[in-house]
Amino acid sequence: METQEGLTLVVGLGLVGGSIARALTQAGWSVQGVDPDATTRAAALTAGAVRHAHADLTGLIAVPSLVVLATPPLVTLDLLAHPWPPEAIVTDCASVKVAVIEAVPERLRPRFVGGHPMAGNEGRGFSASDPELFRGRPWILSPTSETPPSATARVEHTVRALGANPVFMSARDHDRHVALLSHLPNVLAAILVDMALDLERPDIAAGSWRDATRVAGGNADLWADIFTMNANDIAEWLDQMVSRLEEVRRALEGRNREALMALFTAGDAR
Amino acid sequence: METQEGLTLVVGLGLVGGSIARALTQAGWSVQGVDPDATTRAAALTAGAVRHAHADLTGLIAVPSLVVLATPPLVTLDLLAHPWPPEAIVTDCASVKVAVIEAVPERLRPRFVGGHPMAGNEGRGFSASDPELFRGRPWILSPTSETPPSATARVEHTVRALGANPVFMSARDHDRHVALLSHLPNVLAAILVDMALDLERPDIAAGSWRDATRVAGGNADLWADIFTMNANDIAEWLDQMVSRLEEVRRALEGRNREALMALFTAGDAR
Repeated sequence: METQEGLTLVVGLGLVGGSIARALTQAGWSVQGVDPDATTRAAALTAGAVRHAHADLTGLIAVPSLVVLATPPLVTLDLLAHPWPPEAIVTDCASVKVAVIEAVPERLRPRFVGGHPMAGNEGRGFSASDPELFRGRPWILSPTSETPPSATARVEHTVRALGANPVFMSARDHDRHVALLSHLPNVLAAILVDMALDLERPDIAAGSWRDATRVAGGNADLWADIFTMNANDIAEWLDQMVSRLEEVRRALEGRNREALMALFTAGDAR
Repeated sequence: METQEGLTLVVGLGLVGGSIARALTQAGWSVQGVDPDATTRAAALTAGAVRHAHADLTGLIAVPSLVVLATPPLVTLDLLAHPWPPEAIVTDCASVKVAVIEAVPERLRPRFVGGHPMAGNEGRGFSASDPELFRGRPWILSPTSETPPSATARVEHTVRALGANPVFMSARDHDRHVALLSHLPNVLAAILVDMALDLERPDIAAGSWRDATRVAGGNADLWADIFTMNANDIAEWLDQMVSRLEEVRRALEGRNREALMALFTAGDAR
C-alpha cells in the first residue's frame, strides 16, 4: 500500500538519512532505505524507520517517486550517475552544492533539486538519528537551471513534512555561506584541539572552550571530502581570517587598546 | 555576629563577584560587598547576597579577614595598591595572572594569592550571577613566591566553599593556558561574527555556528584589557594558529586530501 506521496527511497541511513526516514515514516509516508552496512539496516528496520532496507541499488523492484541521497558527498557524486527511473525526483543532502549540481547528468537535471539540511548533532550513524532533527531548522534548496517548479515543489513538500523551513538559494550562494558558517568553524575547532595537545592541563578549560571545539572530532573522511569539494570558497574565508588575525597580532604588539576594542565591538551590530 | 571565617569583602558585584557573594552567604559566611553602581548594590542587597554594600572603599569600618577582588583586570591592578589592613588575605579573579602578581606591592605579597575561576556564562552583571556558577569547575590558584601556606590554605578553603576545585598553577603556566583555552577562542569568535556581516543570509547557520560564536559580544572593555595584559602569550598562540591556517590553505590549493585528513584526525588522541 502506498501513500499519496508514493514511495520515498532514502539512500544512506546514517545520522541525516536515518532521521529523514524516521520522520517521514512517522508522518505516514512509505519509506524504503538503502545502506551497505548490515548493522545499520537491522537497526533501521528494528526502529521502524523503513519498510524495507536494501544493501545496494541492484535489488530495487518498486519505483520510488522521490529519492533522497543522504550519503557522504563523494558517494553522492557517484550516485548521481545511477540510472534513476524517469519517474523519480532526486534530491541530496550534501554540505556542498556547486560540485553536486555540476555533476548531475543532463538526463537527471530536470528532476534534480539540490538540498542541504542546516541541522546536525554531535553523533554519527543511525544510532544518533532523531526524527525531530530538522524541526524548525533551515533546509537549503538549490534547483538546477532546468528543474521545473513541479519537481521543486515536490522536494519542498518533503522538507516541510520533516518540519524544516525551506530556504531557496543558488548553489553558488550556498557554498559561500556554508564555507563561513560551517566549514571554517570546523577547521578552527580542529586546529584548536590539536594545539591544546601541547598543554599540561587542558582540563582546566571553561565552557567557552567546549563551545569553540564541540564540532571537532567529527567524521574526518566526510570533512576531507567537503574541504576538497568546496576548496575555493573555504580558501577565500580562510584568507580573510588570516589577515584579520594578523591585524590582531599588530594590535597586540603595539598594545593598541583602541584597535582591540574595535575588534570586540565589531560584531555588536548583528 | 561573625562566622568562624570572619568577614569576607567582595569587591565588584558583577557576574563573578555577585556569584561569589551569593554562594558564600548561602554557606553561612558573613559577606560585605563593594560596587560603585547603586543599582547593583540595591540588587545585591535585595537578593540577600551581602549584608552591607558599600559604594567605595573609604567607608569600610569592619576589618575583613579575606578580600576577593572581582573587578575588571585593570581595576584589579589599581586595587592592589590599596592599603589593605594587615589582617586581610587578598585574592583576585582576573583572567590574567602574571601582570597581577607583578603588580602586587611588596607589603601585600605575603598575603596575596592569585585566583581565576574557570567558569562563566553568557550574561553580564549581578543579574546574571548564580551561586552555583563555580560548582565542579576548576579554580586556578597562583600564590606569590612569598605567600605562606596558611594564606594559600585560607583561599583554598574559600574556593572549596564555593564548590570549585582548586588547581595550583604558576602565573606563567596559567597565562599560557588561558591564552589558548579562553583568549584565542574569544578573538576567533569575534572575527567570525564580524565576517558574517558580509552574508545575506547568516540566519541559515546551524548549531555549530552558534557554538563557535557564543562567546562573541561579551564585554569589549574587559576583553581589550585582557588582550593588552596577556599580549605575549596570546600572540604566540595566534602565530601558531596563522601558520596552521596557512598549511590548510596550501592543502586546499593542492586539493591534498591526505593533509586534510591528517588535520581532521589530529585531535582524536585527546
